[in-house]
Parts: sequence; structure tokens; C-alpha cells
Amino acid sequence: MKIAVDAMGGDHAPGEIVRGAVEAAREYRQKIILVGDQEKIMLGLGQSPPEQIEVFHAPEVIAMGEHPAVAVRKKKQSSIVQAVRLVREGEAVAVVSAGSTGAAMAASLLGLGRIQGIDRPAIASILPRNGGATLLIDAGANVDCKPQHLLQFAIMGSLYAEKILGIPSPRVGLLNVGEEETKGNELTLAAFPLLRQAKNINFTGNVEGRDIFAGTVDVVVCDGFVGNIVLKAGEGLAIALLKMFKEEVTRSWLAKMGTALATSAFRCFEKRIDYAEYGGAPLLGVNGVSIICHGSSTARAIKNAIKRAREAVEAGLVDAIKSNVENTAEVQKVGIN
Amino acid sequence: MKIAVDAMGGDHAPGEIVRGAVEAAREYRQKIILVGDQEKIMLGLGQSPPEQIEVFHAPEVIAMGEHPAVAVRKKKQSSIVQAVRLVREGEAVAVVSAGSTGAAMAASLLGLGRIQGIDRPAIASILPRNGGATLLIDAGANVDCKPQHLLQFAIMGSLYAEKILGIPSPRVGLLNVGEEETKGNELTLAAFPLLRQAKNINFTGNVEGRDIFAGTVDVVVCDGFVGNIVLKAGEGLAIALLKMFKEEVTRSWLAKMGTALATSAFRCFEKRIDYAEYGGAPLLGVNGVSIICHGSSTARAIKNAIKRAREAVEAGLVDAIKSNVENTAEVQKVGIN
Repeated sequence: MKIAVDAMGGDHAPGEIVRGAVEAAREYRQKIILVGDQEKIMLGLGQSPPEQIEVFHAPEVIAMGEHPAVAVRKKKQSSIVQAVRLVREGEAVAVVSAGSTGAAMAASLLGLGRIQGIDRPAIASILPRNGGATLLIDAGANVDCKPQHLLQFAIMGSLYAEKILGIPSPRVGLLNVGEEETKGNELTLAAFPLLRQAKNINFTGNVEGRDIFAGTVDVVVCDGFVGNIVLKAGEGLAIALLKMFKEEVTRSWLAKMGTALATSAFRCFEKRIDYAEYGGAPLLGVNGVSIICHGSSTARAIKNAIKRAREAVEAGLVDAIKSNVENTAEVQKVGIN
Repeated sequence: MKIAVDAMGGDHAPGEIVRGAVEAAREYRQKIILVGDQEKIMLGLGQSPPEQIEVFHAPEVIAMGEHPAVAVRKKKQSSIVQAVRLVREGEAVAVVSAGSTGAAMAASLLGLGRIQGIDRPAIASILPRNGGATLLIDAGANVDCKPQHLLQFAIMGSLYAEKILGIPSPRVGLLNVGEEETKGNELTLAAFPLLRQAKNINFTGNVEGRDIFAGTVDVVVCDGFVGNIVLKAGEGLAIALLKMFKEEVTRSWLAKMGTALATSAFRCFEKRIDYAEYGGAPLLGVNGVSIICHGSSTARAIKNAIKRAREAVEAGLVDAIKSNVENTAEVQKVGIN
């Protein structure tokens, strides 16, 4: 059971990617295929790489600025396209990439295809919160959605929360501007009854923005436009708050001294809100396991993403989605008409 | 020049509202009409209220749970409906309310009407950031928008930032999933050329979620669905972060002691991110000045909201919007066809 890792994708590629793969190989005894420029990867691996690691040469790289779909079609020898191909052809069971999100999505979608019954694969992002994690789906794959897409996101997110995050009967909420059933825009108003009728999810109703980080539900469902903006706004706010706090602290020597004493607490706090702990975000709905990582992923993030990929394979996530989506085809038809 | 204040709206009404009005009357020598249950207001005012304050009796109250438009039509004697009526009839120049946002919006819209050329009034929310503030418009008034609505929000937000926040030629950004012109959902893709063509705003292009708190632009334009969710998510995240931080701190006596020493920095920090500093959010596009406050507004928030209302009147904000919107009618027509 090998996992294909795109060694050339990410701000710190290939260095941090290779290091993360080595750590995963050592810690989990996981077999890994590093895909990318052989020479550079070998340089990163050094004299005695773990026996679990092999290298697959792919000479091309898709850069951040390139148009995803165009680049994926044109650069057949790119690391991400080749890594996905290894999964499609059974050489690997999952793919992990920290490169361009658009390219990783396009390569996965074109290379692996969609699960029958899923119109739009979606990115599930795992957000740290007090006492656990909340899954946000879709975190940015689909900017314009139809009600039945949100239902499909809900089913996939619920299965991921149950099988990978270990939450029994995960509570699923629809992200909205108010809790009442009558609140919402056209999309959420139409999606609400579909989610309520779905038998294979534990739908608890609408949730508001503040619920994302409050632990009210385990899975938050939204379209990818809203999901992308909420995620990035949260990232920006956390950075801005930390900066403002540090400014206040450095104004007085007493506060400075106090904060120095509280340093270990700060570090623990920063670790708790660090995305790297959770590795990457799975692209759910494609016919295979594909994990998309943050562009600025460190070795630790890559190691954890490899762990997530392995868990998804072991839990039979793709098959679980297949059988659950088939069951809801009837509900969707009823709901739409 | 009197300002009508809805004394019965808000979680801490009438106590905090009356106190805030008294503070504003004393500090700014502002004439204020407190609208609501006369007996309760008098009780709050005590023995020697400032001479600038008068009371207008309105026996009814619109509660948080009521359907806004229905309640506003039915309860003609409610404090918010009467406060708006005072503005319409020239008894007051602005209205301030911390009651149900929906009711304040409906009462303002029905009572004052729309400015010609504005299809949808919008809420402009002022967000604190390092070294200033960012205006987010629409913060929740309109869940489904058309491209020309976003253009109107941009113009109104820009005028508010210039005339009230004192920012010359405010930078206006369109909230989106990427900076490139080709990024976006149907709405933002169609709105982009409209904003670019508008001559009376300084449109700098698309911005992402993280830009909201980074100070990249002065005005962030979005539909009210996204705006509401981003605002509430930010509120929830700030609360969650503070809670997690306090948990880490209380784990060791050293960190606890350190944080005690840093208390004043903490307080300054909390003050900087406190919405109460900025008072309320103006409802822009109605034919008059209407300021909507957070439900949990304290006296300080009300005092600051009254100050904002006065500034909007003094700056001639409504007239400025009127003349600027007329000028863009042509651009909109060109853009839509």
C-alpha cells in the first residue's frame, strides 16, 4: 500500500515535502512514492533514505500562476499529473500534494473521475476548535452551487467526520444567516429541505458563522465561495489579532515580562490553532483518495497529510461514499421537483 | 438638530441605552429624543437628566423573535417605528437603534424610503484592524444580490469611508476567492467590470478573505449573505481563540503569573477589537440617517453610535449618496447590457 506524494508542489518544495515523507516513512512505516525531479529529490533524501521510500521521476512542474485545467492537460509529465496516474493505475492508493490547489483538483478530477452520484467533488477543511475539530465542506472547490450539491457535500462530510475523525453520528449544520428554517438565500432555502429529508445524515438545521468555531456541529456545509472566504478571513483575523496583541504587550516592560513568563502557554496555543496539525484537506467525491495541502506546508504538515491519506484508505472512505450516495438519489429527485 | 434613539431596543434596554444617550448629551452637547416607554425611560434618567434630552412616549416594543416586516406594519406605536417617524417628519435628523436588526431595517426602509438609484439599502459594518478600520458592505441586509447592487454598495461604502472615516479616495475591493479578474462566482464575475468602470470609486480589484483584516483596502464589497457569515465567523473565532488561550495559560502557575502582569496589555487589546468603540453600523441607501447597533450594545456603544449618526448628518452623507448614484446610472446601464 503505497502513497504517491507530489514532491514538487508547495512553497517549500521539494525540501519540506521530502522531509515530511521521510518522517512519515519512519514513523508509520508507510511506503511512499515521491514524484518529481529525481535529482532534486535524491539530493533531499541524502545518503540513507528509509527503505519505504521510492522515487518516480516526473520532469515537469505546474506553477502557482498557471491555469489549472489547461496546465494539467498540457503538462502530462508534471509531478501532480503523474502522482495521480499512479493512483489510477493501482501503483499507489492515495495522492498527497501541496502544489496549486486548482491543479491538484483538476488533476484528481481528470485522472480519477467522479464517484457516481456526486456532481461536484468538494474540499473538506478541518478546523481546530476547543475540544476537537469542525469539518467545513466545501472549502473552495465550487464557487456556484445547486441545492443538491450541498446535500452531496453534507453526506461526504458526514462520512469523513465519522470514519476519519471518529465522531459517531456527526452533527451536520447548514451555514446560514440565521437559525430559523425561513432564513437564508435562494440556495440555502432550497437546500434545507433536501438535507432534512436525507436519512443518512444527522442534520441539526441551520448554523451561523459563529458556530463554525464554537463546536455546535461537527460538519458545516456551504458553497465553495463562502467556504473559501470564511477560511481565509479566519486565517487573516488570527494573524491580525496576534499582531495587535504583540503590539500592546511590547508597550510596557511589565507586560513584556509577563508574556515572557507565559511563553510556553503561547506555544501550546499556537500549536492548537496550527493547520499543520491536521495535515491536508481531502478532496471528497473523486474516485480515489486525494489530499490537498496548504501551499506553505512544512514537513510536519506533509507527514500528517500522509497519515490522513492512509486513514482514508484504511477506512474505506471512497466505497462508503459510493454506497451512501446511491441511497440518496431518490431523496434528491423528490427534493428537486 | 435632534437625534432619535430607540430606547427599548437591545439586550440591555432601556438601561444602557438611556445611559449612553445621557453620556452623548453631556459629552457632545447633542440633543436627543429618547423614544419608548416613558415611565421606564424616566426611571433610567433619574433626578437630573441633561437638558438636551427629551422623551417621546411609544408604548409598544418589537421583540427579537417577531417577523420584522409584519411587526413594523402592525406595531405603529412601537419605539423603532416612532423613532423613524420623527426623522421622516423632520423632528429629528437621524435614528439610532440596538433592537432587532430586521425591524430597524424594515422600519427605516418603510419610513424613510430609498434614495433614488439605490435598489437595495445595505448595512456597512466597521471592522477594527491594525492602524484603522475597514468598512464591510453589505454586512447582512441583502442575502441575494445582483451585480448592480454590489456597485451601489461600493459607491455608498466609499462615500462613508471618505466622509465619516476620513479616508481620502478610499481603496475599494471586491471580496472574492482570488485576486485575478477571472476568479469568482457568477455574481462577482459580473460585478467586476461594473466596479472597474465606475468613475466615482477607487476600485483596486478583487480581494480575498484574509485582506479584510489586513488593511489591503478600506472598503470591502460583498453580498449580505457572505458579509453576515464572515462577520459572525470572525466574532466566533475571536471568542474561541481567547478561550483556548486562557485554557493554556491556566495550566501553569508561571503562565498565570505572567498573564496577570500582562493584564493591562490584555485590556488595551480587548478595547482595540471591541465593536463598541465603533458604535453602530449605518444602513446606507435609505433616505435619511439610520444607525443599527449590536443587540448587546453597552452605553459606550450607544454613545459612539450617536456620535456616528451626528457625523453622518454633518457630513451630508445622504445628499452625497444621492448625487453620486445619479451619476452612475449610465455606467450601470452600459454594464448590464
